[in-house]
Amino acid sequence: MPSATARTRVRRLPELALYDQSVLYSIIDAAYVCHISFYDGESSHCIPTACWRDGDRLYVHGSNGGRLIRQLASTKEVSVAITLLDGLVLAKSAFNHAMNYRSAIIYGRFDAVNDEMEKRRLMDVFMRFIAPGRERDARQGNAKEFAATTILGIALDEAAAKVRTGGPSDDESDLDLPIWAGVLPMAMLPQAPVAASTSIGPEPVYVRQWQRSE
Amino acid sequence: MPSATARTRVRRLPELALYDQSVLYSIIDAAYVCHISFYDGESSHCIPTACWRDGDRLYVHGSNGGRLIRQLASTKEVSVAITLLDGLVLAKSAFNHAMNYRSAIIYGRFDAVNDEMEKRRLMDVFMRFIAPGRERDARQGNAKEFAATTILGIALDEAAAKVRTGGPSDDESDLDLPIWAGVLPMAMLPQAPVAASTSIGPEPVYVRQWQRSE
Repeated sequence: MPSATARTRVRRLPELALYDQSVLYSIIDAAYVCHISFYDGESSHCIPTACWRDGDRLYVHGSNGGRLIRQLASTKEVSVAITLLDGLVLAKSAFNHAMNYRSAIIYGRFDAVNDEMEKRRLMDVFMRFIAPGRERDARQGNAKEFAATTILGIALDEAAAKVRTGGPSDDESDLDLPIWAGVLPMAMLPQAPVAASTSIGPEPVYVRQWQRSE
Repeated sequence: MPSATARTRVRRLPELALYDQSVLYSIIDAAYVCHISFYDGESSHCIPTACWRDGDRLYVHGSNGGRLIRQLASTKEVSVAITLLDGLVLAKSAFNHAMNYRSAIIYGRFDAVNDEMEKRRLMDVFMRFIAPGRERDARQGNAKEFAATTILGIALDEAAAKVRTGGPSDDESDLDLPIWAGVLPMAMLPQAPVAASTSIGPEPVYVRQWQRSE
């Protein structure tokens, strides 16, 4: 279960903090990309990468030779952030403007998955997450591809979520000002699929339904 | 001008790297949120926050007492990442799946803006970025609000962009497989504005045009 440690306790606007596991998982599952922060002894780095959840762990993957994978595999403490922007909040005063968002932050260490059967299972979970059924349609990874790829997992037990929803929170003394106030929402929406010139065969159901999937 | 230093030189898929200033600025200007990575001597942190660009600097702001602002103001080396996801790339093999994205990474230190006139000017730039004209419509910050708020800027001179566009890149030996291949695009799109119950007066033009703005 996610818990509030000294690192995950939300200090700024703590009334927006949520330590509920289902909220945390729903934020992670709505995102395709996370940002991973680590320190290599000289510099802090902030690297975006694709991610997916399986049970109580978050997974990322990459080429064995990549900088991120090498750094993460050498047991560095990291934090991982996932942020979904939902809208701009226009208040009557400049300083009460805000954004609506859902965010998750995770602290811990990534561990490499060494078992090949487990790597295969996790890649199928990732493919299903990208497009349910794709794990059966696509040519599966061969031994060489799996050997060249590292899958890393981090536990979701030191984590917190923070969510802002709803309209502006204006100062009492500003409420009568004759100013439009409200929310300009935004959403990440699927657009029309684009077949490659090399595509062969009919559109799978996850392609046909892409634009209706959110 | 952005430049390729040892930190910003793109190692992974270097053919996707772009060190062109106009590309870097266009990615920054298309984003409302960045992730900032810093190391506090014990842990790495990855914190999302609103950002905006003015000239050759990126700005963030926050309450003087906030952890992020206090850490950044104490001259820590940071990296800042901005990531825009544009689509899922479905290749014929599992391992050639990819994502289309535009990303920027910046290394350096944040400096606090101390001059009050400059702080006022930068907040106006931020408001204009959120909604052009809002800086005139909203009640402007008073001396107390400005005093309680820190604005921090970072130079954009040690930075790089990385962009992936287009369809899948399949292995030659997979091209004849009878599998749909292509892109499932996605886009962050404005949704219908929601007026607050406290809103007074007509919709400003940036609210009326919100859903047509992208």
